[in-house]
Amino acid sequence: MSTTASGTTAAAATNSSATPRAGKRAHNFNAGPAALPLAVLERIREELIDYRGTGMSVMEMSHRSPEFEAINNAAEQNLRKLLAIPEDYAVIFVQGGGSMQFTMAPMNLALPGKPVDVLHTGAWTAKAISELKKGTLHTIAATTEPVKFTRVPNAGEIKLSADASYTYLCTNNTIEGTQYHALPATAAPLVADMSSDICSRPLDVSRFGLIFAGAQKNLGPSGVTVVIVRKDLAERADKNLPTLLQYRTHIKEKSLYHTPPTFAVYILSLVTEWMAAEGGLPGIQKRNEAKAKLLYDAIDASGGYYHCPVEKASRSLMNVVFRVGGSSSQPGDENLEKEFGKQAAAAGLVGTPGHRSVGGMRASLYNAVSVEDVQALVSFMKEFQRAKG
Amino acid sequence: MSTTASGTTAAAATNSSATPRAGKRAHNFNAGPAALPLAVLERIREELIDYRGTGMSVMEMSHRSPEFEAINNAAEQNLRKLLAIPEDYAVIFVQGGGSMQFTMAPMNLALPGKPVDVLHTGAWTAKAISELKKGTLHTIAATTEPVKFTRVPNAGEIKLSADASYTYLCTNNTIEGTQYHALPATAAPLVADMSSDICSRPLDVSRFGLIFAGAQKNLGPSGVTVVIVRKDLAERADKNLPTLLQYRTHIKEKSLYHTPPTFAVYILSLVTEWMAAEGGLPGIQKRNEAKAKLLYDAIDASGGYYHCPVEKASRSLMNVVFRVGGSSSQPGDENLEKEFGKQAAAAGLVGTPGHRSVGGMRASLYNAVSVEDVQALVSFMKEFQRAKG
Repeated sequence: MSTTASGTTAAAATNSSATPRAGKRAHNFNAGPAALPLAVLERIREELIDYRGTGMSVMEMSHRSPEFEAINNAAEQNLRKLLAIPEDYAVIFVQGGGSMQFTMAPMNLALPGKPVDVLHTGAWTAKAISELKKGTLHTIAATTEPVKFTRVPNAGEIKLSADASYTYLCTNNTIEGTQYHALPATAAPLVADMSSDICSRPLDVSRFGLIFAGAQKNLGPSGVTVVIVRKDLAERADKNLPTLLQYRTHIKEKSLYHTPPTFAVYILSLVTEWMAAEGGLPGIQKRNEAKAKLLYDAIDASGGYYHCPVEKASRSLMNVVFRVGGSSSQPGDENLEKEFGKQAAAAGLVGTPGHRSVGGMRASLYNAVSVEDVQALVSFMKEFQRAKG
Repeated sequence: MSTTASGTTAAAATNSSATPRAGKRAHNFNAGPAALPLAVLERIREELIDYRGTGMSVMEMSHRSPEFEAINNAAEQNLRKLLAIPEDYAVIFVQGGGSMQFTMAPMNLALPGKPVDVLHTGAWTAKAISELKKGTLHTIAATTEPVKFTRVPNAGEIKLSADASYTYLCTNNTIEGTQYHALPATAAPLVADMSSDICSRPLDVSRFGLIFAGAQKNLGPSGVTVVIVRKDLAERADKNLPTLLQYRTHIKEKSLYHTPPTFAVYILSLVTEWMAAEGGLPGIQKRNEAKAKLLYDAIDASGGYYHCPVEKASRSLMNVVFRVGGSSSQPGDENLEKEFGKQAAAAGLVGTPGHRSVGGMRASLYNAVSVEDVQALVSFMKEFQRAKG
C-alpha cells in the first residue's frame, strides 16, 4: 500500500487551494469524526463490493471467517508495532467510544477504598468525573479550571493520594486545545483518555495502566474504540460485572466475544498500515509538528488579530483553538468568527468553528490532515485578515 | 434508488449459478454479519469519497453536521415508516450489539421485586439469562430445552408471573432455526431480541415494550443496534446508572449524546430505503416466505437425505437449519456435512455450516438474500445428493 499512499498524497496535494472546489476533496479540520487518508478511502472503495476475490464486502463476511480474523489480527498487530506495545499489555477493540470508557475504566480498575486521582483539564475529564460521582471514590488531584483550562497542570500543583487505584488524565483536550508534552510522575498506574492524540507521536506505553481512544480522530471511523490495558490490571474486575463491560472478556476472546464492528476494525487496519508506510510514529510526529508550527506561527504573527488562549507549553499539536478579530479591548469578535467559519467553508476549509460549548475557532490537525491543508488554511487566514482586519 | 435496486437485482440474477465464479458476487448465507443488497453497496461505493458534493466521506463528517443529522433522521424515519412505529415509542441507535442489550434491558426496565419472565428458547436467551443471573430477579416462564429447542413454547406451557416487570423473548433463534409465528399473550410488556428477524415481515410494535436488534442481519453492517422502546418504560431507569447505559440519554439526544457509529447509521438509512423500494415489509415478507418455502420444500422432498430438526410450526423464515446425509440409523452425517460446506463454498455458496455450537448446516435467508440465491442452493443440494446420496 505504500506506493499507492505516496502517489495519492502527491495527487491530493495538487488539488489543494483555498478557493471553492466543487467535487474536490475538502480541507477537513473536523474535530472527529475527521479526515481519513485519501489512499485509505480509495482502497476501501476498491475493495467495497468484492474483498480480495471473496465475492463479498468486508461488511458481509462472518466475524468468525478466516478473512475477518486476519483483518482483526492485522489491526492489533499494526497498533502493537506502531506503539511498541509491550507483551504484558492487551490490545482490544470495543464499542461505545471514549464515553463508555468513563464507565468501564472505574468499573474494572477502581479498588475498594482506594481513590481514583483525577487531573481535571476540561470538558472531557468533566464527563469522566460525572461518571465517577455515581459511586466511585475519587479525588481531584489537580484542576486547571481556575485558569479556564488554558493549560494542563504543572507537576507542582498535582496532589496525589498515597493509595490511589489509578491516576486519570486526558492527554489531549480536544475542546480546550491543550495537550500534555510530559507525563506526570505517579506511583499509581496512569489511565489515559487518548482519543484525540493516540498515534500522533511515539509513546512509552509502559508508563500507562490503561489507554483508551475512540478511533474517529487518528485511527479510523467512529464506532470502534481501542483499549490498551496492562493484563494484570484487567484482572482487578469483579467477575459479576456485565460480561461485555469486563475488559477480560474481550482480552480472552481477542475482541471476538460478540460481533465486533467489523467494517470499522477493517478501516482501522488500513489506517494503521498507512501510518506505518508514512514513516511510523516518528514520521507522523514530524509532520504533525510541522503542521502545528505553521498554524501557531501564523496566529502569533497576526499582531493579535488571531489569538490562541492556550499557554505555549500546553498547546495541542492536534487541536489548535484560536479567536478571530482580536483587539486591545477584546480577544476576539463573535460576529467575525461566524463570518470566518462561513467563508472558510465556502473556500473548502471545513470544520473550523470551535466546539459549541466554547465558541471561537478550532482547526483539528489529525494525522490525515496534510501540510497542504494547513497551508491552505494559513493562506485563507491571511486573506481574511487583509479583507476584514 | 428503486430503479437501480430492481435493475441490479435482475443483473445479479443472471450471474447466479452453483458453479465457481471468480470475481462474482457470492451467494451469501452468512448468519450475520450477512448479505447486503448489491444496490446499497454500489451506492456506498459511489458516495464513498465525496458524499453528495461535500468533498468528504460520510465517515469524515462531523456527527453534528447538517448532512449527518439528515442521515440520522432518515434512518429513524425510514424505520418508523417501515414498521409503523407509534408516536409513543422512541427509536434510538446505540452501540454494543444485542449482547449489550442483555444488560441494558434489565438495568433500565426491571422493577424492584417484580421478576423478569423469560421464555427460554436457545443459545441467545441463555446469554440473556446469564446476565439476569448477576442480580436481576427473574423466572423461567417457559423453556423448550427438554425438546432440544426444536420449537418455541406453546401458549399452554408458559407460566407467567402475576407481577412481572416484563416478559422476555427472542423472536427468532438464529442458531436453533426457530421463530415465533404468533406472539404469546402477556399482561406485562414484551421485551424482544429481534436481531435476526426485525423488518423481515410486518410487525405490530404496540405489542412490545422494547425491541432491540443488532443491525448486522437485516438492517446493515455490525456496529449499530436499533432499540425501539415505549417512552414511558424508559423512564423506569435509575438516573444514577451510567449515562450511556440509560435509554433516556439516547432518547433525549436523538442518538447523538456521544459520537455515534456514523457510517453504520448511514448504511442503515440506505438499507431501510432499499426495503421501502422493494415493497416495504409486505413485499419483503412475500419474498422471504417464497425463499423459505423453496428451501424447506427441497429438504422435505429429499427422502430424509436432508433433515430439518425443527417442528414445522416453529420453523424460521430467516435461518434454515438442516442435517445432511440422513438415514434410518442417524439424522445426519458429520463427514458429509463438512464435505457439503466445502463444496458449497467452492461453488460460491458461502456460510452454510451451522453454528459451531450445534453443527449441521444453516442457510440464513435474510432480506438481502435473493430468490435466485436460494435457487442456486437448492440446485446445489440436489446435485450433492445425486453425487453422494
